[in-house]
Amino acid sequence: MKTKYLLPVAAVALAALPTMGFAQDAAPSFDEIGPYIMTTLLFCMAGFLVFFMAAGFAMLEGGLVRSKNVTMQMTKNIALYSVAAIMYWLIGFNLMYPGDFNGYVGSFFQITVLDPVGVAAADAALDYASVGSDFFFQLVFVAATASIVSGALAERIKLWPFLIFVVLLTGVMYPISGSWKWGGGWLDQMGFQDFAGSTVVHSVGGWAALAGAIVLGPRLGKYKDGKVNPMPGSNLALATLGTFILWLGWFGFNGGSQLAMGTVGDVSDVSRIFANTNMAAAAGAVTALILTQVMYKKPDLTMVLNGALAGLVSITAEPLAPSLFGALWIGAIGGVIVVLTVPLLDKFKIDDVVGAIPVHLFAGIWGTIAVVFYNGDASLGTQLLAIAAYGVFTFVGSLIIWFILKAVIGIRVGEEEEINGLDVAELGMEAYPEFTKG
Amino acid sequence: MKTKYLLPVAAVALAALPTMGFAQDAAPSFDEIGPYIMTTLLFCMAGFLVFFMAAGFAMLEGGLVRSKNVTMQMTKNIALYSVAAIMYWLIGFNLMYPGDFNGYVGSFFQITVLDPVGVAAADAALDYASVGSDFFFQLVFVAATASIVSGALAERIKLWPFLIFVVLLTGVMYPISGSWKWGGGWLDQMGFQDFAGSTVVHSVGGWAALAGAIVLGPRLGKYKDGKVNPMPGSNLALATLGTFILWLGWFGFNGGSQLAMGTVGDVSDVSRIFANTNMAAAAGAVTALILTQVMYKKPDLTMVLNGALAGLVSITAEPLAPSLFGALWIGAIGGVIVVLTVPLLDKFKIDDVVGAIPVHLFAGIWGTIAVVFYNGDASLGTQLLAIAAYGVFTFVGSLIIWFILKAVIGIRVGEEEEINGLDVAELGMEAYPEFTKG
Amino acid sequence: MKTKYLLPVAAVALAALPTMGFAQDAAPSFDEIGPYIMTTLLFCMAGFLVFFMAAGFAMLEGGLVRSKNVTMQMTKNIALYSVAAIMYWLIGFNLMYPGDFNGYVGSFFQITVLDPVGVAAADAALDYASVGSDFFFQLVFVAATASIVSGALAERIKLWPFLIFVVLLTGVMYPISGSWKWGGGWLDQMGFQDFAGSTVVHSVGGWAALAGAIVLGPRLGKYKDGKVNPMPGSNLALATLGTFILWLGWFGFNGGSQLAMGTVGDVSDVSRIFANTNMAAAAGAVTALILTQVMYKKPDLTMVLNGALAGLVSITAEPLAPSLFGALWIGAIGGVIVVLTVPLLDKFKIDDVVGAIPVHLFAGIWGTIAVVFYNGDASLGTQLLAIAAYGVFTFVGSLIIWFILKAVIGIRVGEEEEINGLDVAELGMEAYPEFTKG
Repeated sequence: MKTKYLLPVAAVALAALPTMGFAQDAAPSFDEIGPYIMTTLLFCMAGFLVFFMAAGFAMLEGGLVRSKNVTMQMTKNIALYSVAAIMYWLIGFNLMYPGDFNGYVGSFFQITVLDPVGVAAADAALDYASVGSDFFFQLVFVAATASIVSGALAERIKLWPFLIFVVLLTGVMYPISGSWKWGGGWLDQMGFQDFAGSTVVHSVGGWAALAGAIVLGPRLGKYKDGKVNPMPGSNLALATLGTFILWLGWFGFNGGSQLAMGTVGDVSDVSRIFANTNMAAAAGAVTALILTQVMYKKPDLTMVLNGALAGLVSITAEPLAPSLFGALWIGAIGGVIVVLTVPLLDKFKIDDVVGAIPVHLFAGIWGTIAVVFYNGDASLGTQLLAIAAYGVFTFVGSLIIWFILKAVIGIRVGEEEEINGLDVAELGMEAYPEFTKG
Repeated sequence: MKTKYLLPVAAVALAALPTMGFAQDAAPSFDEIGPYIMTTLLFCMAGFLVFFMAAGFAMLEGGLVRSKNVTMQMTKNIALYSVAAIMYWLIGFNLMYPGDFNGYVGSFFQITVLDPVGVAAADAALDYASVGSDFFFQLVFVAATASIVSGALAERIKLWPFLIFVVLLTGVMYPISGSWKWGGGWLDQMGFQDFAGSTVVHSVGGWAALAGAIVLGPRLGKYKDGKVNPMPGSNLALATLGTFILWLGWFGFNGGSQLAMGTVGDVSDVSRIFANTNMAAAAGAVTALILTQVMYKKPDLTMVLNGALAGLVSITAEPLAPSLFGALWIGAIGGVIVVLTVPLLDKFKIDDVVGAIPVHLFAGIWGTIAVVFYNGDASLGTQLLAIAAYGVFTFVGSLIIWFILKAVIGIRVGEEEEINGLDVAELGMEAYPEFTKG
Repeated sequence: MKTKYLLPVAAVALAALPTMGFAQDAAPSFDEIGPYIMTTLLFCMAGFLVFFMAAGFAMLEGGLVRSKNVTMQMTKNIALYSVAAIMYWLIGFNLMYPGDFNGYVGSFFQITVLDPVGVAAADAALDYASVGSDFFFQLVFVAATASIVSGALAERIKLWPFLIFVVLLTGVMYPISGSWKWGGGWLDQMGFQDFAGSTVVHSVGGWAALAGAIVLGPRLGKYKDGKVNPMPGSNLALATLGTFILWLGWFGFNGGSQLAMGTVGDVSDVSRIFANTNMAAAAGAVTALILTQVMYKKPDLTMVLNGALAGLVSITAEPLAPSLFGALWIGAIGGVIVVLTVPLLDKFKIDDVVGAIPVHLFAGIWGTIAVVFYNGDASLGTQLLAIAAYGVFTFVGSLIIWFILKAVIGIRVGEEEEINGLDVAELGMEAYPEFTKG
């Protein structure tokens, strides 16, 4: 996503200039309003696609946890999206895009206000899009960040502490670090490039998940006697569906981040992003398929799914500039990263139930670095600095929050609850009451 | 949805005025045709989103019934959508929008006719959209109404009587009452406000479902010895997916009901509706989550799902005028309504398998009332009158149809069939032949 | 899809004519660029819908195979899409649309190149759309063809030979035969009409599947002692979801094949196609429902699902010209075809696991013939010639490839592997490890 400078000010300026090219009482021509209409439409369309990623995450995670924890995983996913929607409206949006960027305090409690109903052309940000479309588009991004966390910490974290973390992540932490780049902050001014958020969205979610996984500890029995005990997901059809939904949503995620669709160049770029995004996912999937065949003699579906997702995360920092071949090799390396780093996490006894950290953090870092190969405005130093800055801020901040939550209210269910499953213990409701073996 | 006055006449008038601003042989400018193109696109896009709600209802209902009735629930859902599509073409569309509104009889057998292939600008309704797009968009609405009924009556109603009811509901009843508002009928002339159909679509479905549930009676064993016997759904992952799909479709449902996208004001309003719709759903979900935690000490996922849906239904009557805060509290009350009224129905031994009546009828009534808080054109009296008119017409009409169907062909499967499940008894085909306990 | 003549040449011509109506340094007006923007958007939107059909095929097939083969079916589906994406970029796209159509050899190794980033209006194909959007849209079509094959050959084919076949189908065979029509080749010049590909896409997939099913042979125990042994699908909810997703995607499949959205006529046609496509699917579903009720006394959900799909395939060759009534009866005959030909295949002991051959080949042939009833440019002779030409080329070509694959590396898993399921035998990973009976 390109940086969006000073939008509210621009809108005000437009409103103050009624002589800007169309008379107040004459209908503005499509030349004047066409780009605004198209970009607003882009945000709406890309926004509903990214919204649907919430379903994708829910299905992916629901398919990769054991059946005794599926109801909880569903509950967490719909709840985290809803909490994110409310928090981002209440605090996040204005914290992330603080107008004239005069600091956080002034805008902290400025609740999001949309354009008035039937806004007149003279009062609209004709060089951009409606506030409602922009807000909706940004909001579905922050929810994606929170979804990443829920997958990694599945099967053992309590519902309410998790949701409190989501409140802080989506209302405060993500908006603050997001403003560094997309709010026109210091990293943006240094030239950091992150088109749709390999770092701003995905690695932030990954860092928060990593901190949580460390504080929370692995699932009971996951690492025993020096061995990794596999805990297969209960529904791989569901996990595959989730992956396809995420892939679908990613067209909106990356394509919408062009932030404009009203010129030949912009709409062509959106389509270019679609093609590249698709290619990176395909390359990630094929790479993971071949690699697991070679390494383990058997292709591993969960690795293929995560390979596709890693390809998508990898191309997210720069889905526009690369050629299709560029998208292919960037995505392919994303696939390699996932296959190689999933076992690595296990070596450190970091239990990431769905592979969210390899996919979103490691491939996110890779994608942020890969920008330098195709985007002349990017410097490796700045990219690395940004990766480190987001890492330190989010990882340390998350660690602190997780530790406080652990100390104050506890974040992990009891042993018995974990063994019996969170669904029965915490919710009293099984996801598949008739299916599971007696 | 705003009222659409006299569209066919307008189209004819346009066709009769070849001098209306563009020469017949010169290509019309984008200023002239841009709004038509954008609005037609809006209907296509919103239409496919609302179409997908058919899948959402199928998954929600399929997840909330027991596994022995899932094949039947799938059959009903794909069949009802298909039947609705045919009936609305054959009778419904012209019955609902009778052109000059000269009564029903004249237009009763007027089958829907689309614009000719490659319609010329001079022959098109340039101030609106293509007939095909409008027809498609209206058609997916009527299917939603029928879907509501199928959920409430699940697990005991026979397939064919149900489909006969769908024929009458989608071909006759919904179009007649729909015309009162959206066809420019008496309620519209009285100033009744129902933007996207909290009453016209959702409460109508709810009334039809309520009548059916009363005539049909509860499932065997649901209410025994003064106790409510819970019959948990077989697949909560599927139900969650269905809810997310419905939420997605609702952007089209409410956004498309702006009925225009070709001006700055209209496209901004569409985006405003997206943001409000999303907020109401989020608020409904969070409210149900907190309320079930407080009331039952355990969050209830099915209530959270229905809370989100109730938030969506609540905002549907007026998704444009409220601020985001307005959408939040309107949706939140929708969530409260669901949590409080699901047990209420059980008290009256009205067995609504998926909670369709609380979600679509009760929250629909609430949403229709809530219009008065933000829409200055609405009066409480007219809103209440409309609620009552739709209620009496649909409830009494449905009761009559259900009673006739019951008397003539029977609407309920036999006891043994119900116990063994409708899938084996009526269809000879299990949905999950390998999963269920032996 | 209409034929696309000489696009690259047109683009070059445009680039060479800087005086074509807008000064290089003045912003082009929306009159000049509006159609390009709208058509590019159409391809992006239709493209993501057709992309999602990959998920639809995966869910449909995953629901119709037995649980012991679901992981494999998921793996094949995500892998085939990814392989198709890469092959179509590497070879297929330019092979299918060879520019000035000077033969295959010259363009064989011409890898797809997109428009440059931020392409200027003067350098873009203003009478069409961006290369990226066109490529993306064409690419998701070829993946659909490959998906058809995977369904028919499920539960017994090895993964890697299947993927090698996909490489050849999507990289070479489909593009060559596709170019006959959509690349402006000999059948296009003869006046063959196939709007969105009943023949070019669906029957090609069907022929390839038929050849594979013959070479591969039926599943163990499917035909024993002269009887057909039913092997019920493991998850009909999933199969229903897949059908709904395919139906959704078909709006993009057929609607996008209008190849233009920037005029009143074009956008109206897109909406007309939406309405017709929906009607044909509904008619196919209802027909299959009634027919199975009449023939077997019990409605058959899998037939209803396939009936809807057959309706969709039937209307695909000409979704624009028919009236809604035309779409209804064309789709209805599609439904009849499926119900009658599924048992027919069994008579010949051709084991098509999901009914892909009746749906995509037989209904595809029907749809291609039905064009003559509504499209005055079509002649029955040419339609039949084209059906035969695609049949001979694809069936014989596929037969040869399957025989070579069988001889060289083997295409079928061992008996024990088939009995135990491909998931455990080939992948070591069950899709539902906790559900299936012990």
